[in-house]
Amino acid sequence: MTPGVVFTVDATDGAARTGALSLPRGTIRTPAFMPVGTAGTVKAMTMAEVKATGADIILGNTYHLMLRPGAERVAALGGLHTFARWDGPILTDSGGFQVMSLAKLRKLDEAGVTFRSHIDGTEFGLSPERSLEIQALLDSDIRMQLDECVALPAAPEEVERAMRLSLRWAERSKAAFGATEGRALFGIVQGGDVAALRLESAAGLAAIGFDGYAVGGLAVGEPQATMLQMLDVTTPALPADRPRYLMGVGTPDDIVESVLRGIDMFDCVLPTRAGRHGVAYTRFGKLNLKNARHADDPRPLDEASGWPAARDYSRAYLHHLVKSEEILGAMLLTSVNLAYYQSLMAGLRAAIAAGRAGDFVAEAKEGWARGDIPARS
Amino acid sequence: MTPGVVFTVDATDGAARTGALSLPRGTIRTPAFMPVGTAGTVKAMTMAEVKATGADIILGNTYHLMLRPGAERVAALGGLHTFARWDGPILTDSGGFQVMSLAKLRKLDEAGVTFRSHIDGTEFGLSPERSLEIQALLDSDIRMQLDECVALPAAPEEVERAMRLSLRWAERSKAAFGATEGRALFGIVQGGDVAALRLESAAGLAAIGFDGYAVGGLAVGEPQATMLQMLDVTTPALPADRPRYLMGVGTPDDIVESVLRGIDMFDCVLPTRAGRHGVAYTRFGKLNLKNARHADDPRPLDEASGWPAARDYSRAYLHHLVKSEEILGAMLLTSVNLAYYQSLMAGLRAAIAAGRAGDFVAEAKEGWARGDIPARS
Repeated sequence: MTPGVVFTVDATDGAARTGALSLPRGTIRTPAFMPVGTAGTVKAMTMAEVKATGADIILGNTYHLMLRPGAERVAALGGLHTFARWDGPILTDSGGFQVMSLAKLRKLDEAGVTFRSHIDGTEFGLSPERSLEIQALLDSDIRMQLDECVALPAAPEEVERAMRLSLRWAERSKAAFGATEGRALFGIVQGGDVAALRLESAAGLAAIGFDGYAVGGLAVGEPQATMLQMLDVTTPALPADRPRYLMGVGTPDDIVESVLRGIDMFDCVLPTRAGRHGVAYTRFGKLNLKNARHADDPRPLDEASGWPAARDYSRAYLHHLVKSEEILGAMLLTSVNLAYYQSLMAGLRAAIAAGRAGDFVAEAKEGWARGDIPARS
Repeated sequence: MTPGVVFTVDATDGAARTGALSLPRGTIRTPAFMPVGTAGTVKAMTMAEVKATGADIILGNTYHLMLRPGAERVAALGGLHTFARWDGPILTDSGGFQVMSLAKLRKLDEAGVTFRSHIDGTEFGLSPERSLEIQALLDSDIRMQLDECVALPAAPEEVERAMRLSLRWAERSKAAFGATEGRALFGIVQGGDVAALRLESAAGLAAIGFDGYAVGGLAVGEPQATMLQMLDVTTPALPADRPRYLMGVGTPDDIVESVLRGIDMFDCVLPTRAGRHGVAYTRFGKLNLKNARHADDPRPLDEASGWPAARDYSRAYLHHLVKSEEILGAMLLTSVNLAYYQSLMAGLRAAIAAGRAGDFVAEAKEGWARGDIPARS
């Protein structure tokens, strides 16, 4: 591990693990969910509220930040932590994923990728070296190698080409990172839905040596069963003494299933994006507050929740806010969702420590399936 | 006064007064600024934050609430206080102003006004009696008579017609209100920019007898000088032992000038709307955070502010949030603006009590004029 970075596994239950990843700016209890703070803000939340939900770490998007306000500007303003007022650890992605999904006029070759900003058309370049340079300017705590992520379904040759390119970029990323004390560099396993390629990617990355290993290229269009099958293949091939991060995942169900397969870290826009679109996640499952059935419902989302907004506001009021497109609706539902995700992670950590991860997951699924909305009369 | 409603003037300085309006749900320190909570939410704020800015009372819009979620629904859910989670006093307007400015296909006659919702075209009716009925269903603490507000400039005959109609509606409103213990009813002075009509309206309302007197039909297109001239004429004609409320006003400058002329209460969407559009109000005046000159400015909006968001975030970060249309930008700037407005009211109250209202206003104006942005290099 890079000096100043420590990962401990404190308990295991089957393939599931609980522990902690410690960095100078703070300790991340694992399994961990990282709220996405795309452009230096977790949308519709203050950082104090994000912290209050139980988050130990947030994610920042290199692609968005390099375009606006710009990495050099953030550095001049004291780095991303000072700029956005979050003093815990921050993980930044490499920017590659958003280049592929958001930018225009991409040109990808061995050196890297050039593209035009989706905001104003300005041309930018991203290479393994420039990505690490940007992440250093942002001064994030966990940095990701540049990789190429292929949407599924895809031809095996295309998956293989991108995986091998990602492996070569992994080597260049490691060299560019150096060994920045107190900062971690993660490699990213690619290989699509092809088990042999996943294993080759994992072995190749382990040979280079990273502080942590991400599983990329999943939750990109394939069925959940395929994703879990790839995890069954991949996680045993990753070094047991390093954290494992499943990128861009997912629903509460995706998360509990992946934790059972040995994943330690997650990020996903789902709880924040859903919150801005009137959808709440609670122990009763997913609830669309836009639905007219909530208009006269005086009940809170979850009277036993540890999060005030889930206890204190009626569904009728939340329905009204969502229908009226009031900002407060996005604020409250985002906070409810992030708090639920964090309570789920806390529950998983405790269950793994107690050797009852399977039971915990079964109980959680039972709650989601049961719901709590009376049938229409 | 209606039983349970108490107004005291504790000190005067020229025409300016400071005191308190007490209602069962709380005491409003005057001069007071009432944040506008149009549809049961002060946009981009939680009620706890609104309270923390120093607000004693908020305003709710009868027009918006009658359309969505509906007054009968709010009543069934326990009233507006329970619905929106604000336990202090709430003032509701009559709905008339928004019918004129927002609704479609209006028909106004002696009985009242019929109109179609701007949301879905549903037809609604509003009369003095129905307006008071809706306000009772919402269970607001201060209720307003239905009036007709004419935009300026307007022909004197049109102003006179609307003023006399408003007076007749004032009588009907008083009868419809009865004398609901612990709730207050305010009449509304109309008369446009015609001094004689303003005086006739004030005298007519005083003869009917209200718990407070609003000055309506100002800040509707006329120059500030005209508005202040109308206040010079009107406030001396209003009962000194009743609160005076200038509706829909205004800028910080409008407010201090009106307080010097004996106004006790204000409401305006300016601080909240400006906050959603990237504009901050501080003791240095008005600042448009969209302006590129803030992009690299590490300074907070006001390092000596009593409001954390004004001290803790850099102008560069606020600029970034505003440019990126991030919800957090609206949240932070709305709170900064409401906190500034409340600090201005607190300053006015203290200055009046100390007999230095004029000096306070002069100092405030000096600060707004001076600003704190260095000239461009």
